Amino acid sequence: MMTENPTPAPTPAPTPAPVEMLVCTTCRRGQPVPENTPVPGRQLFDALQQHGLPDGVTMTPVECLSNCSQGCSLVLRGAGRWTYIYGGFTAEEHVETILDGATRYRDTADGLVAWRERSQHFRKNCISRIPPLETPNV
Amino acid sequence: MMTENPTPAPTPAPTPAPVEMLVCTTCRRGQPVPENTPVPGRQLFDALQQHGLPDGVTMTPVECLSNCSQGCSLVLRGAGRWTYIYGGFTAEEHVETILDGATRYRDTADGLVAWRERSQHFRKNCISRIPPLETPNV
Repeated sequence: MMTENPTPAPTPAPTPAPVEMLVCTTCRRGQPVPENTPVPGRQLFDALQQHGLPDGVTMTPVECLSNCSQGCSLVLRGAGRWTYIYGGFTAEEHVETILDGATRYRDTADGLVAWRERSQHFRKNCISRIPPLETPNV
Repeated sequence: MMTENPTPAPTPAPTPAPVEMLVCTTCRRGQPVPENTPVPGRQLFDALQQHGLPDGVTMTPVECLSNCSQGCSLVLRGAGRWTYIYGGFTAEEHVETILDGATRYRDTADGLVAWRERSQHFRKNCISRIPPLETPNV
């Protein structure tokens, strides 16, 4: 057994800063909702919470992100990162897609996930993006 | 002349925190742009700069707010305020509307301008809104 030249332990990757995911819990997706049924936005929030979030990602419910015609909607943001708004989600179809997107976002320093790494849904349903406060003029 | 009981000077209103307006200067409004012509987003930025901004409002050019299909676009944001994204602007039609909206936004503490005080354009072309970082859970 060689002990003279042990392989040095790899330097741990820097821990990315935490990410906040805001989910619109009042979204009706522009459609009528039967009485005594949670609105689609609340269903989405509950489904994500039930699934569990990636490390370093917190979730905050918000009353109306004003993207009603293209809901359900969420925002990904974090210190020093571009903020992204995405839409077109349902609790039934998109929990895994959202958590994948949130993880990829978390793993960047600036919030910019390469196009090839984005899911089809994220590519097609980006509502807008906003630069971090620290952005220099372009 | 009565001098014994002079009316006290009114307490000056607190100065609102500064507001940043981000304008997408790469916006083509989803249309072809003739060569050697500034794109519509750049035209809008230049028109706003030429007009001059209200006190307490700064303007920052941004390369792509990812709201290309509903441009030209801008963002209003400020510490402690809701952030708003608006679209559908042109340099020819909307400079006054934008400056009016930016002023009303500046004059709030939280970024929430009453519906009745918003212009028709702002009412109909709100792309999304994002709560301030300080927002409590709802």
